[in-house]
Amino acid sequence: MEIGLVGLGKMGYNLALNMLDHQFNVIATDQNKGAVEEITKQGAQGVHSLEELVQKFTGRRAIILLVPAGDIVDQVIGSLVPHLAKGDIIIDAGNSKYKDTLRRYSELKEQGIHLVDCGTSGGTDGARHGVCVMVGGDQEAVDYVSPLYEKVSIKNGFMKTGVAGSGHFLKMVHNGIEYGMMQAIGEGFEILDKSEFDYDYKAVSRVWNNGSVIRCWLMELMENAFSKQPKLEEIRGVMNSSGEGIWTIEAALEYQASAPVIAMSQFMRFRSLEDDTFHGKVVAALRNEFGGHDIVKK
Amino acid sequence: MEIGLVGLGKMGYNLALNMLDHQFNVIATDQNKGAVEEITKQGAQGVHSLEELVQKFTGRRAIILLVPAGDIVDQVIGSLVPHLAKGDIIIDAGNSKYKDTLRRYSELKEQGIHLVDCGTSGGTDGARHGVCVMVGGDQEAVDYVSPLYEKVSIKNGFMKTGVAGSGHFLKMVHNGIEYGMMQAIGEGFEILDKSEFDYDYKAVSRVWNNGSVIRCWLMELMENAFSKQPKLEEIRGVMNSSGEGIWTIEAALEYQASAPVIAMSQFMRFRSLEDDTFHGKVVAALRNEFGGHDIVKK
Repeated sequence: MEIGLVGLGKMGYNLALNMLDHQFNVIATDQNKGAVEEITKQGAQGVHSLEELVQKFTGRRAIILLVPAGDIVDQVIGSLVPHLAKGDIIIDAGNSKYKDTLRRYSELKEQGIHLVDCGTSGGTDGARHGVCVMVGGDQEAVDYVSPLYEKVSIKNGFMKTGVAGSGHFLKMVHNGIEYGMMQAIGEGFEILDKSEFDYDYKAVSRVWNNGSVIRCWLMELMENAFSKQPKLEEIRGVMNSSGEGIWTIEAALEYQASAPVIAMSQFMRFRSLEDDTFHGKVVAALRNEFGGHDIVKK
Repeated sequence: MEIGLVGLGKMGYNLALNMLDHQFNVIATDQNKGAVEEITKQGAQGVHSLEELVQKFTGRRAIILLVPAGDIVDQVIGSLVPHLAKGDIIIDAGNSKYKDTLRRYSELKEQGIHLVDCGTSGGTDGARHGVCVMVGGDQEAVDYVSPLYEKVSIKNGFMKTGVAGSGHFLKMVHNGIEYGMMQAIGEGFEILDKSEFDYDYKAVSRVWNNGSVIRCWLMELMENAFSKQPKLEEIRGVMNSSGEGIWTIEAALEYQASAPVIAMSQFMRFRSLEDDTFHGKVVAALRNEFGGHDIVKK
């Protein structure tokens, strides 16, 4: 089976190796020529343009995009489409916003191209050795690419999620849950750290990860992190985010679903990016106005 | 090694079987005579009073309490102490509030009795086949009972947490994290359920539990739950709680640690217990007062 791959970043490169392991004919490209050379050495057909990638196929095309979410996805799709034939399949395996996916799906459908949305989880190690995928889109197109996902996914880690957009939506909510879980874990260690007790956090992560109710992969990662830095002493608590938390909250608002913990996790990430806040100034000013309480001057 | 056990409920009975598997001489009692008879058949020395339990020992006593947190722990300790000798050890393996543990530790220390606090996680299956334990208290006493915990715990599931109270404190924070994780998972499924997509939640739990970032034991339990009821259609969303979330928030307040997600998880549990709220009436009344907005009459 021929599979195209656009994007040889950390996820794409590892997924390419995974596909090669399973004897797929991988036709791959990236703006980074070094990555194309590397994957060619590993057995892929490396190419240096989207047009060339399309032309290398001998039959129906299924082309995976693993590029950053946003405009780049539109640009790549725009460059691919003139070279594609009706019935070809584009698989967006990145973290695209599901509303963008729904729009692209409709636009591509008008031109006879299928868009399959694939929510991908598990990090680079998953991409390499067994990925977790949530795949939505037209049933015929999803069925066509299923033999690929049966092979490259971890056991029980492949789900056909339904109509177009449902794969990216499910991955988005997965990330929303992830935000909440991570904030809860962070707060727990915060309380330990400010408490009167003196814990070895690596040992805490280990014991919590063996037999306890909160055992999880994230806690395994905490054991790794604390084994490198017992108090994370070289890390600042700056919590960036990549959009999926925000989109999850937007969906909660649209569907009128109560999701205060996921929302708060996102807000705490915003807070972590600031050294000072305007709401803090407002509250300090008000306390000073009504009660004469001291303010901390800049 | 002789081990006393007070409390043959679900956790205690399974822990007794676990200890018997490992050749410990278990001296057990419970108010429920049937449970005492059962565990006697399994090889324990079943007794029908705390006095008798104490007298059965031939040497230094280590007595595990697995009774409901609160006054019952004080009552059992009060009944045991007159019969104990200096150096004996009481192990409170229940979910006692760590501040109660600190008080009891001091009271018992005055009488020469050690109180070891053991935070226990993993449910009844853990108690039976390999428990997760966080054990605090005087080092000599903790070391004395360590051979027991080395055997009955799951691999890497036994941690000596430090001074008295540190075991129960760590277990309490564990439960606080658990509240946050569970609320985040709940909110994720809430958004899925209100969305325009139609997911098979058992399949969602399965795919999220295989290779994804949020894979965890709680998600395994969700797969079990959804396999019994695809939409949890026979369950009302009433979220009871047993105190550990509240204590975690109290600790966060005392130590001035920011823990909004854990706090919100507890508040959402309170909210779930009410069909209507007074704050809801207040907000509805205010909207009506300032803007003439409709109110829903009782």
